[in-house]
Amino acid sequence: MQTRFKLDSRLANDCFTLHYRCDHHILLMNDSRWPWLIVVPNHVGMRDWIDLPDNAQRETQQVVHHVGQWLKTYTQCYKLNIASLGNVVEQLHIHIIARNIGDANWPTPVWGYGEAVPYKENIVGAMSANLQEFLGEL
Amino acid sequence: MQTRFKLDSRLANDCFTLHYRCDHHILLMNDSRWPWLIVVPNHVGMRDWIDLPDNAQRETQQVVHHVGQWLKTYTQCYKLNIASLGNVVEQLHIHIIARNIGDANWPTPVWGYGEAVPYKENIVGAMSANLQEFLGEL
Repeated sequence: MQTRFKLDSRLANDCFTLHYRCDHHILLMNDSRWPWLIVVPNHVGMRDWIDLPDNAQRETQQVVHHVGQWLKTYTQCYKLNIASLGNVVEQLHIHIIARNIGDANWPTPVWGYGEAVPYKENIVGAMSANLQEFLGEL
Repeated sequence: MQTRFKLDSRLANDCFTLHYRCDHHILLMNDSRWPWLIVVPNHVGMRDWIDLPDNAQRETQQVVHHVGQWLKTYTQCYKLNIASLGNVVEQLHIHIIARNIGDANWPTPVWGYGEAVPYKENIVGAMSANLQEFLGEL
């Protein structure tokens, strides 16, 4: 049985790490079609959001709230899609996706649509710095 | 500007109402392919989960948590999918869907897949009673 947290290999391969805050990994999916963040609580063996202990659940909700506020401010998007699915990658992770009218696959959800379009430039440094500044001021 | 809450007509048409608790409407999607609940906070003019005031957000998280616990217990499902999308129906609503390996469209998300298969029997009474009993004991 796994006792030490290890980020799922698929999440690690598909995403950049933007930040680590309050026991949560904050990732950026390497898919430039939509600004798409993933929050992963640093808990071993969790699958469903409701599996988390009460305190941790509130903490995750708080992190999702703040990261969502940042994403909406940073991207000036029309809508956030927030979801905990985990049918493929079982490790508990929460998607926070910036959506805009007319974006690829609007208004249908993003999962399973076409192929990811990797970022051409390394935007991780700038996004990470902006996110950390935003969260630091809360 | 709307000042009084009114359930979105599409949600009202597609769902049965199971319960009303702590300022949240708890609906059942009339689609027997998956046990699919929808939680709607009784707040006017909300679109994104993070738009809710802090207290209301915590309350919604709590309701989603309890309703999710009930759904998982009642259906003995493998996995919960929890999501706030709202790209089509803008009124803030949170999906809580019971998923099982091999169900229609597993492991892909349920939205936009095929046509809803309405329940043949009226199961609302039994589900509603069971849900209310579960929530009453918390």
